[in-house]
Amino acid sequence: MAEELILLDEWLSMFGMRARIALAEKEINYEYKEEDLMNKSQMLLQMNPIHKKIPVLIHKGKPICESIIIVEYIDEVWKDRVPLLPSDPYQKAQARFWADFVNKKVGDVGGRIWSKKRDEIEGAKNELIEGLKELENVLGDKPYFGGDTFGFVDIALIPFYNWFYTYEKLGNFKVEAECAKLIVWAKRCIHRESVSKSVADEKDIYEWVVNYRKKLELD
Amino acid sequence: MAEELILLDEWLSMFGMRARIALAEKEINYEYKEEDLMNKSQMLLQMNPIHKKIPVLIHKGKPICESIIIVEYIDEVWKDRVPLLPSDPYQKAQARFWADFVNKKVGDVGGRIWSKKRDEIEGAKNELIEGLKELENVLGDKPYFGGDTFGFVDIALIPFYNWFYTYEKLGNFKVEAECAKLIVWAKRCIHRESVSKSVADEKDIYEWVVNYRKKLELD
Repeated sequence: MAEELILLDEWLSMFGMRARIALAEKEINYEYKEEDLMNKSQMLLQMNPIHKKIPVLIHKGKPICESIIIVEYIDEVWKDRVPLLPSDPYQKAQARFWADFVNKKVGDVGGRIWSKKRDEIEGAKNELIEGLKELENVLGDKPYFGGDTFGFVDIALIPFYNWFYTYEKLGNFKVEAECAKLIVWAKRCIHRESVSKSVADEKDIYEWVVNYRKKLELD
Repeated sequence: MAEELILLDEWLSMFGMRARIALAEKEINYEYKEEDLMNKSQMLLQMNPIHKKIPVLIHKGKPICESIIIVEYIDEVWKDRVPLLPSDPYQKAQARFWADFVNKKVGDVGGRIWSKKRDEIEGAKNELIEGLKELENVLGDKPYFGGDTFGFVDIALIPFYNWFYTYEKLGNFKVEAECAKLIVWAKRCIHRESVSKSVADEKDIYEWVVNYRKKLELD
């Protein structure tokens, strides 16, 4: 009970996937609890009363919210395992900067593609491509964002890869045509077991989004 | 030259004030460079090419951007001085959560009061009050957000205190009437030399905003 670790999550959440990947990288066992966001559990409302959002990591009964904060927490608590953030303060600040950039320029902007009315898609699509190009640029020729090893910024970004299919279908474009090197990086990441077992299938995500858009009459 | 520390900032920026307060708490000397955001310097464009925003802390020639990341960086590099973040991972995650909450529910929402058209003010005002009440609630009866000592969440929030006057004048309300205990906390903070010498005068901020709104024909 004392070491109890629970993840409140929803299968298609890119933010939940970040927590799953971090836990898998550290080889930490936990109980996964699927949430239905149309019908939130009492546990979720109690554990994240402020935002009422997944993911929530509950460690020894205490909740940690917000995916990036969860990944940092996991890294700090299980610091004897493979590190996710660099130890150098400057490198760490850079990693935090780019994770924040992913939240704003891929997460928020991507949200405007899949969850808003059709007339918002075009503008959001262009902004998304711009953001992905910046990321491709900062990746450069390195195998991972932090250099030779998979880490914090990779974890922040890779869950969006399986959402690209949905963005592409809705926005009528191809990420690979714009950012070929970023796709090479994504494929490198997706081959890691920690990633492949943590991410949702791109077609399943798209199907869910199509239904969601129908229900909310967004098209 | 090797230890050179420069802060690119603008006097009325709540985000810049965070960096100033953190540096003052740690008693670190640095060179302050005032930016004119209507006419950004080459140095700013070069040091923060992504967002082109202040504050930027330049340490030994290398830029650190985004105010919360800057405060964490300062805490990590000068860790022999008074700590700003708690060392316990759970407490640290909580501090990060609330700093992020301040960004979203006070920073972004406050921005909708002072920098948007008049018809946005009413909704934003109500959201701001709601956010401040949550913060008052989490503060509880503690002198500071982290407990007995001034720290990370205090630094994240206190720069907005001298903006309250502007929000109040534009939104026609009084924060103190809604959140009296939060104002007691703010006055406690503002008595610290690190804070009082780092924040802009509330009337000067208001005057600047009035001019800004006039120029952009927001009223």
